[in-house]
Amino acid sequence: MSEVINKSKLAKQAAQAMGNLTTEQKNAALLLMADALITEQQAIIEANSKDLQRGKEQGTSASLLDRLALNETRIAAMAEGLRQIAELPDPIGDTLESFDRPNGLRIRKIRVPLGVIGIIYEARPNVTVDAAGLCLKTGNAVVLRGGSSALFSNEKIVEVLHTALERSDLPADALQLILSADRSSVDEMLKLNGLIDVLIPRGGHSLIQNVVNNASVPVIETGAGVCHTFIDQSAQLDMAIRIGINAKAQRPSVCNSMETLLVHEAIAEKHLAAIADAFQGVHVELRGDDRSRALVPSMLVAEQADWGTEYGDYILNIKVVKDLDEALAHIRAYGTMHSECIVTEDAANAEKFLQEVDAAAVYHNASTRFTDGFEFGFGAEIGISTQKLHARGPMGLPALTSTKYRVYGTGQIRE
Amino acid sequence: MSEVINKSKLAKQAAQAMGNLTTEQKNAALLLMADALITEQQAIIEANSKDLQRGKEQGTSASLLDRLALNETRIAAMAEGLRQIAELPDPIGDTLESFDRPNGLRIRKIRVPLGVIGIIYEARPNVTVDAAGLCLKTGNAVVLRGGSSALFSNEKIVEVLHTALERSDLPADALQLILSADRSSVDEMLKLNGLIDVLIPRGGHSLIQNVVNNASVPVIETGAGVCHTFIDQSAQLDMAIRIGINAKAQRPSVCNSMETLLVHEAIAEKHLAAIADAFQGVHVELRGDDRSRALVPSMLVAEQADWGTEYGDYILNIKVVKDLDEALAHIRAYGTMHSECIVTEDAANAEKFLQEVDAAAVYHNASTRFTDGFEFGFGAEIGISTQKLHARGPMGLPALTSTKYRVYGTGQIRE
Repeated sequence: MSEVINKSKLAKQAAQAMGNLTTEQKNAALLLMADALITEQQAIIEANSKDLQRGKEQGTSASLLDRLALNETRIAAMAEGLRQIAELPDPIGDTLESFDRPNGLRIRKIRVPLGVIGIIYEARPNVTVDAAGLCLKTGNAVVLRGGSSALFSNEKIVEVLHTALERSDLPADALQLILSADRSSVDEMLKLNGLIDVLIPRGGHSLIQNVVNNASVPVIETGAGVCHTFIDQSAQLDMAIRIGINAKAQRPSVCNSMETLLVHEAIAEKHLAAIADAFQGVHVELRGDDRSRALVPSMLVAEQADWGTEYGDYILNIKVVKDLDEALAHIRAYGTMHSECIVTEDAANAEKFLQEVDAAAVYHNASTRFTDGFEFGFGAEIGISTQKLHARGPMGLPALTSTKYRVYGTGQIRE
Repeated sequence: MSEVINKSKLAKQAAQAMGNLTTEQKNAALLLMADALITEQQAIIEANSKDLQRGKEQGTSASLLDRLALNETRIAAMAEGLRQIAELPDPIGDTLESFDRPNGLRIRKIRVPLGVIGIIYEARPNVTVDAAGLCLKTGNAVVLRGGSSALFSNEKIVEVLHTALERSDLPADALQLILSADRSSVDEMLKLNGLIDVLIPRGGHSLIQNVVNNASVPVIETGAGVCHTFIDQSAQLDMAIRIGINAKAQRPSVCNSMETLLVHEAIAEKHLAAIADAFQGVHVELRGDDRSRALVPSMLVAEQADWGTEYGDYILNIKVVKDLDEALAHIRAYGTMHSECIVTEDAANAEKFLQEVDAAAVYHNASTRFTDGFEFGFGAEIGISTQKLHARGPMGLPALTSTKYRVYGTGQIRE
């Protein structure tokens, strides 16, 4: 039996017990896990240094090495994350609907764990802790398949967490780490219907597309964000610039940052130079359409492919549009249904934008950077779903749950 | 451009307008569609007779021909189904959650259509009408790919419904029927990410498995039911027999009917003969394990494969179990997480069963045959989901919807 099948079977067996844990048991385990990370931090840092060493030898980029690196501060943050998960309300067992039928049947829709969650991710070892904590709190077992570049770190972290689970009398098998760095171990997970209930890919475009395109296990797709901000004719200019700068430049590498600014022609004619100045002042490279470049010749040319590109960098496309409808059409053509914003003082235009734009989160007069589980007040974030099934937008703990109908009868049969 | 891509693009364009329709517009169209089916019933019956003729020539079985056949009564029932959908509350636009953040952002989670739904199904032409009505009511566009055996019928039905949509000033493109009977048209739909938002397969095991195993578009899996009834030690014998007979024999062909009866040994020793008599009295063939056959030698032998078989017929497996735990273990091993029942007077055992059995619907003292959208009071049924993502169990209109976060700001940016 392969490592993936063997560990997924163990996870499935453990999932049964996980679903029956009390909130107190789960929270106690989360706190012990947090303590164990601190107690064992030197061992974790040592394991991590082996990953870093190998990464350097293989010529890994400085930014990837930075994401991979662990130190006392980062381990403390991971432990604090677990403590915060312990503080969150436990969604399992909640009654979501309750209805009685004329024949006397009492039907209750109850929140239950998903079962076994498969998480496929890349370099960052904090995902290992995060995923273990979120899945534990929701009564799920989890099969982790992290990137090979973090294997020593992940193995040590999981060993530490296993010890804490055992000390809590919880089934350590509920947390599984796939050690095989071979691509075939991912391929195998994608097809494990019956053992894995849901797959969540976390990482770059090609990782996510591989999972979406090849999995027969249901997937929650997260990721790509080509987000727009539309400055309408009636926008307050200072607010529009403040929101735009925040959406682009506060943290360009994340999926809820802006890639394209759409500017109403009436605003553009008067103020595009000032808008461009503001972005260039925070070192954003601008790429414009013909109308933008006629007004601000210092912009580069936005090529056709640029409109659909998630730069994740200090680069911004700018397009002048005739009106709201042209902005809507552009977003329909190039958006990834993630986060979209209109800055306007016109209530009817705001309503039309929020109604017609098909995206996980639509904003009136606020930065798209708020599409985030913590900013939404969920206290945790599994990721941001960009699909329409099951969960859409920032996912809190309930996204890791399913439901079950409990039906109470007194001998009813169907006529 | 292929037929599938072309029609899916038209559906996607139409989906935009569909999402903005009022409830009144949608209900008026549903009623016009119902009227049109009645007005055009002779033309539909003629088209259907061509399908029947071809089916006979190809040696199609009598039961399949029966499912394919349309007459005035069946067309009236399809029209009545549309009128019932018009009566149901419209879920689109409902506010599901509403919360304000400390920074003043007001966040509203709103129900929206899924977009474009692809439905892949087999012979029955009533699915064409049903799916068109349910998708219209939920503001979705739909791409239908029915079985080739019903092609003449489906083409005429869609033509009639198109006329009604046009007369209602609704985009007729929101309802698409794939005419290609080639298997490749199904394969193409499975991969149309970006044009089709969700696939719902309706039909037999191999159709559903093909979709689940090969689709990159998200799927809602419906179907297989290997359902159990456990007669516990404390069960009232007459209630247990009544529930068991109903679960097995009221309509054996459907997914919520029982395939295996588990009997506590204390009950079995005294009453298995009476239980077997009751099933044999309604022409159910019994297949037992060794302990059952020792008590009732007239049973056939249940082979290993039988425990996992969905007979869909007047055949029942019977197994004697030591206790509740053995019953739970059997269901874990062979159940398909559809519908499971315990008959017991012991409240603690009932609670343990409902808690621990991992299935879409779990019953105490009631027939598994109640797992059905109409019996649950949903007024409609898209199918019964046997997966844990998005929807589980009988699916009413909300299963055909997604959500979107509307965020109202006053210039907020992220710090």
